[in-house]
Amino acid sequence: MLPLAAAPVADVLTDLFLVLLAAKIGDEIFKRLHQPALIGEITAGAIIGPAVLGIVEPSEPLEVFAELGVVFLLFWVGLETRLSDMLEVGRAPLLVGILGVIFPFAGGAGLALALGEDSATAVFLGVALVATSVGITSAVLIELGVLGGKAARTILGAAVIDDILAMLLLAVAVGLGQDEGVDVPALLTTVAMAVAFVAFFTLGGTRLFAHRPRILHSPRFSESPLLPAVIICLGLAAFAAHIGLAAIIGAFLAGMVVAETKEQHPIEEEVEPLYAFFPPFFFVFIGMEVELAELADVETLGLLAGVTALAFVTKYAGARLGARDLSARDANVVALGMVPRGEVGIIVAGIGATAGVVDEQLFAVIVGMSILTTVVIPPLLRRALRE
Amino acid sequence: MLPLAAAPVADVLTDLFLVLLAAKIGDEIFKRLHQPALIGEITAGAIIGPAVLGIVEPSEPLEVFAELGVVFLLFWVGLETRLSDMLEVGRAPLLVGILGVIFPFAGGAGLALALGEDSATAVFLGVALVATSVGITSAVLIELGVLGGKAARTILGAAVIDDILAMLLLAVAVGLGQDEGVDVPALLTTVAMAVAFVAFFTLGGTRLFAHRPRILHSPRFSESPLLPAVIICLGLAAFAAHIGLAAIIGAFLAGMVVAETKEQHPIEEEVEPLYAFFPPFFFVFIGMEVELAELADVETLGLLAGVTALAFVTKYAGARLGARDLSARDANVVALGMVPRGEVGIIVAGIGATAGVVDEQLFAVIVGMSILTTVVIPPLLRRALRE
Repeated sequence: MLPLAAAPVADVLTDLFLVLLAAKIGDEIFKRLHQPALIGEITAGAIIGPAVLGIVEPSEPLEVFAELGVVFLLFWVGLETRLSDMLEVGRAPLLVGILGVIFPFAGGAGLALALGEDSATAVFLGVALVATSVGITSAVLIELGVLGGKAARTILGAAVIDDILAMLLLAVAVGLGQDEGVDVPALLTTVAMAVAFVAFFTLGGTRLFAHRPRILHSPRFSESPLLPAVIICLGLAAFAAHIGLAAIIGAFLAGMVVAETKEQHPIEEEVEPLYAFFPPFFFVFIGMEVELAELADVETLGLLAGVTALAFVTKYAGARLGARDLSARDANVVALGMVPRGEVGIIVAGIGATAGVVDEQLFAVIVGMSILTTVVIPPLLRRALRE
Repeated sequence: MLPLAAAPVADVLTDLFLVLLAAKIGDEIFKRLHQPALIGEITAGAIIGPAVLGIVEPSEPLEVFAELGVVFLLFWVGLETRLSDMLEVGRAPLLVGILGVIFPFAGGAGLALALGEDSATAVFLGVALVATSVGITSAVLIELGVLGGKAARTILGAAVIDDILAMLLLAVAVGLGQDEGVDVPALLTTVAMAVAFVAFFTLGGTRLFAHRPRILHSPRFSESPLLPAVIICLGLAAFAAHIGLAAIIGAFLAGMVVAETKEQHPIEEEVEPLYAFFPPFFFVFIGMEVELAELADVETLGLLAGVTALAFVTKYAGARLGARDLSARDANVVALGMVPRGEVGIIVAGIGATAGVVDEQLFAVIVGMSILTTVVIPPLLRRALRE
């Protein structure tokens, strides 16, 4: 091997190659076992990652690809969602979002206090149980072709509400863990910006792009509308992340915005390959986050089991109560669909560790809970949807 | 702004957004001025990069996206290239590759020795003038719809020869700059691997995939052959980079391999969006490498002008002589098409700086030469092709 500066490039290309190959193999095996393909990809990530073989380490470029994976996933979901359909669902998303936050928060904080943790840690565990990741649920809904249904629209609306509330609670939790305490004016400003951002796009901003705007014309070699659409997606995702929301909320709104022009352009066809290329990185990366070493003792395993059960039951109960106006089948689908914590739970655990209120054991437990709630849902959701 | 760990993600998303937006704006302006769109993108990179506004810094994730940009560009070129067409061109690519390496190497090394540099630095400047980047030329050929012509096939074949010779010379140059000297057995092994790799795929390896192999079936949500094709592309690109070739040579061969299955699958349509998404990062990143501060004095500017002129004239003359069996028009197109040094010249400069044989002034000059030979060619090539 020669001492070339191209070596880092070779390593990154090798990682990207191994991740996609592992995803494809996991995907094919799980499909043949009649299991959800994305669980196969998560499993593949756990196997090639540090937990088992350790042939691929989670690196910054892989994290960026994983983030773009879930961003393009939600962008695609937004493209498939009409604003008018969302507004038609009524108040169910609001109730699901609010109750689906209150129950897990109370459960997590209560458990931590019962175990003798201080109030900052208690608030953090509450927040960690709140954060829903709609990426996994969206992928299952797409796979089963039910993205247009009432349950799907309720889940997507509730995910937006859920994320705003989670951001608010997370800011409070971080503030409690710091000496300066909670910066209430900054908090209120951020929440106001988040609400304004969402309200602008749901209450009329999409019309901005309804009349074949010039920016959606004539991209480079292919005369496709891909690049302008992707620019809007990345812009709103970045903006959402900067004001403290999840980037995927911005991507979802961007998808709805671009969808207003979709009669004129085959945007979905154009975006589909991006949506085939990036999401495997997201699923594999979740699997790579699995840490078996920290879960080796019985006490931690017990805590993991307890926290995971609590996370499942409180989110399910809260969301189900919020969705009680829907049919029993749809309410069940909505409640299950809100359970996965995915990458959002892992991000919250990371923030808590950085802030010094989440120790190594609790970090491993929150990451484990995020992955378990993510892995358990696709089969349950498939069964519920086929009923 | 809240203290969220999601902030790095927000920054990367913002960078990706700004790069694509700048690329799109540069693209549109230059098209309206009837100039090549990719020069508009390089210019946009120079403007948003450290040279002018400094609103986006070249970061590791951006470098990975840039690399994937040129990898997918050459993959696409490979998809459009039939092996039988390549072999039909005869010995012209071989002669263009060899003479297009000897002339610039002799010119660069001779100039350095005339300026009183030591032999290690002289060899390095020779190598820096050798390295051709076929990415820019490919983009121009695609834009003008002449990828299938004899000139284009000659350029692509010559680029493969050129890259193998450049790798060999670069290894010698790095060896001369180190105390251990040139590791001849390692060098021969690497060259043998590179030749075997290229020979395997050009002399029959493509047939491996000619009979609708299972791996090219049934990817995830969309039933497209995208993911397996991309896996082959990344795998061969990574392998090429590991044995010391440019990653784009592997991507080009991968494209030819996958093209053997193209009657059965609409692979080009599938890959097109990736090819619209990633290459702008490549062009903008080249522009971001522009360093004006180091070029501020008259002596450096004079050196830059001399080296650039030498790089242009020697490569043009060598390639033109090699292509003398073609028509005068095609020989001119081939010779111009080999001139851009692009990212390969920048990589060589970086290797020389790391090895301690290229000082700051020479580094800035080589980078400047790489960019100037890249920017000057598209208009000349367009004129030559329209004759």
